[in-house]
Amino acid sequence: MNVDGQPMRPIWLDADGTTIKVIDQRRLPHSLEILSISTVDQVVDAIREMVVRGAPLIGVTGAYGVLVALLNSRNDADFLDMCRRVKDARPTAVNLAWAVERTVAVVMRGAARADRVALARQEAAAIAEEEADRCRRIGEHGAALVESLSEAKGGRTVHILTHCNAGWLACVEWGTATAPIYVAHEKGIDLHVWVDETRPLNQGARLTAWELGKAGIRHTVIIDNAGGHLMQHGMVDMVIVGTDRTTYTGDVANKIGTYLKALAARDNGVPFYVALPSSTFDWRLRDGIGQIPIEDRSADEVRYVQGLTPHGVARVLVPPETSPAANPAFDVTPARLVTGFITERGVCAANEAAILALFPEKRQESSVA
Amino acid sequence: MNVDGQPMRPIWLDADGTTIKVIDQRRLPHSLEILSISTVDQVVDAIREMVVRGAPLIGVTGAYGVLVALLNSRNDADFLDMCRRVKDARPTAVNLAWAVERTVAVVMRGAARADRVALARQEAAAIAEEEADRCRRIGEHGAALVESLSEAKGGRTVHILTHCNAGWLACVEWGTATAPIYVAHEKGIDLHVWVDETRPLNQGARLTAWELGKAGIRHTVIIDNAGGHLMQHGMVDMVIVGTDRTTYTGDVANKIGTYLKALAARDNGVPFYVALPSSTFDWRLRDGIGQIPIEDRSADEVRYVQGLTPHGVARVLVPPETSPAANPAFDVTPARLVTGFITERGVCAANEAAILALFPEKRQESSVA
Repeated sequence: MNVDGQPMRPIWLDADGTTIKVIDQRRLPHSLEILSISTVDQVVDAIREMVVRGAPLIGVTGAYGVLVALLNSRNDADFLDMCRRVKDARPTAVNLAWAVERTVAVVMRGAARADRVALARQEAAAIAEEEADRCRRIGEHGAALVESLSEAKGGRTVHILTHCNAGWLACVEWGTATAPIYVAHEKGIDLHVWVDETRPLNQGARLTAWELGKAGIRHTVIIDNAGGHLMQHGMVDMVIVGTDRTTYTGDVANKIGTYLKALAARDNGVPFYVALPSSTFDWRLRDGIGQIPIEDRSADEVRYVQGLTPHGVARVLVPPETSPAANPAFDVTPARLVTGFITERGVCAANEAAILALFPEKRQESSVA
Repeated sequence: MNVDGQPMRPIWLDADGTTIKVIDQRRLPHSLEILSISTVDQVVDAIREMVVRGAPLIGVTGAYGVLVALLNSRNDADFLDMCRRVKDARPTAVNLAWAVERTVAVVMRGAARADRVALARQEAAAIAEEEADRCRRIGEHGAALVESLSEAKGGRTVHILTHCNAGWLACVEWGTATAPIYVAHEKGIDLHVWVDETRPLNQGARLTAWELGKAGIRHTVIIDNAGGHLMQHGMVDMVIVGTDRTTYTGDVANKIGTYLKALAARDNGVPFYVALPSSTFDWRLRDGIGQIPIEDRSADEVRYVQGLTPHGVARVLVPPETSPAANPAFDVTPARLVTGFITERGVCAANEAAILALFPEKRQESSVA
């Protein structure tokens, strides 16, 4: 996407063909910094410390991580061990394991080291392009939904609420939840976005607000507590969120707090959509709440808040020094609360039959689950 | 309540009989500072800027504000105008208008200025003592609920979730939502409190965590997004919150985000209680969502977060400088989501008949609404 007139992605392969370049998303919005990655430790750290985040993007980072592993390993065992470390860097997003496994499988078809390196580069690039393409399609399908709402309102502003950042920073281009917003905006539909700040790491306030601002899209940052009140007063026309892993039965793991917004949407008759590329479906899991692993992250992410001071970026401690905190990073929204999925193949209801009708080639995979 | 062995209240009349002393709640937990108030401007600022906050406490502050108005006014018209300014300092909590009106009515019975000053002192002190007494009774009634849960769990830890600060800092002693916790803790019941941080001003992380820490009660700070996930996994046995205004039909205005927790409690079969002194009922309003005025506060409360740095307390800007924010301060939880009210007279269901059965003397007041 364009940032101040320059095309930009959150990840790319440097011209040297070996170094991965990423936007350091911990520093946004107050500073746009690019980080170079050339060791497996750096790949793992970048994923774990959320230099890169968002299910599609950590998938792509995992694929490039396979290239980095290949360039740094002495033998197959070493390589596979490194790839396993990349794959295990974070537990919840299914894209990471999926992209690493896919790239490793392709690489292992190569005989000579040079062939393998070329295959890893190609496969990682292919995954990145596929995700970008899927997101654009999600945008087209989702924009049609926004357009219907706009028509139903006689062209008055459509108010869309989103949680966390499922924007291009979380993907490659377009984003998932933001893709319908970007495409609808391109088409001239009058819209406004309520941006949940998304504690604890404030990806909404920091990243989604930054993206929308750069794209010239009208938006308002709200605390995560506010969405229910806005819905009660008819100030939200639809909710669109992303997901880190979705079962083929329709349960949605996403940034913690998503479930609360889904409950409020249901209570107020507001449509609640989840936008995802098919790479985010887990074709093996039936029961989201019981089966999707939820990452517990450091309590300090809750206790400290980072932002800009007159002297640069700093962090402040909010609760008493002696008070403990807990930090589950995701929650699961049951399928019953989801109005529909916006995928690269179109929109479908949140149930097994509708999902498998859209992705019939996955029937076998899911039936052996 | 005791703070490091010293008895303390959030508000008191200085020995000089004219200066109001309050804990500056904007500075907690990192600094305990006492502010002196002796003009009506200072009263209004203290309420508006949330030096003091919480429905019962701003009621008591309003009552003492009548004394300050009396001491600073030249005639009746001047006095009544000052009292109106105090009453209008914040719109949502009903206690403020109630306490100011009550104190003014008593004061106007006095003839000489000296009598009036004595009456204002007496009435403000009486309101403070009544609130403390009501809160202790709320504690007794609520502790019985905690005790039943403890028995049902065979003595295992009872996990209570609370939102915002409805503690002694928000009242005079005991608090409303925290009173059952303090009394149950006194009785030796094993309990643990999940403390919602309560954005934007973090009264949970800053004030409730501080109170519970000082009282030696086990607690964990969580982001406002986390409660639904914890309830889905059986980690919350009950929710207790306070309220800023409750209709006599059972609709509850409280700190924004309360409604989302009530929805999650209902979805997971977790009892959701609202603790309140009868001074927080509005006997004239039937429809909470339609009739309770919801305060819109400064966007900067959302955009900036205050906390401790190595160089003292500072604030940091989280979203991009150019992104707007909105800050509705309360939401309304419909009666249908409330398991019960814990009042000074006992526990009742959240409907007009049950509430008026507990407060029969209010029947007439509510029937003319």
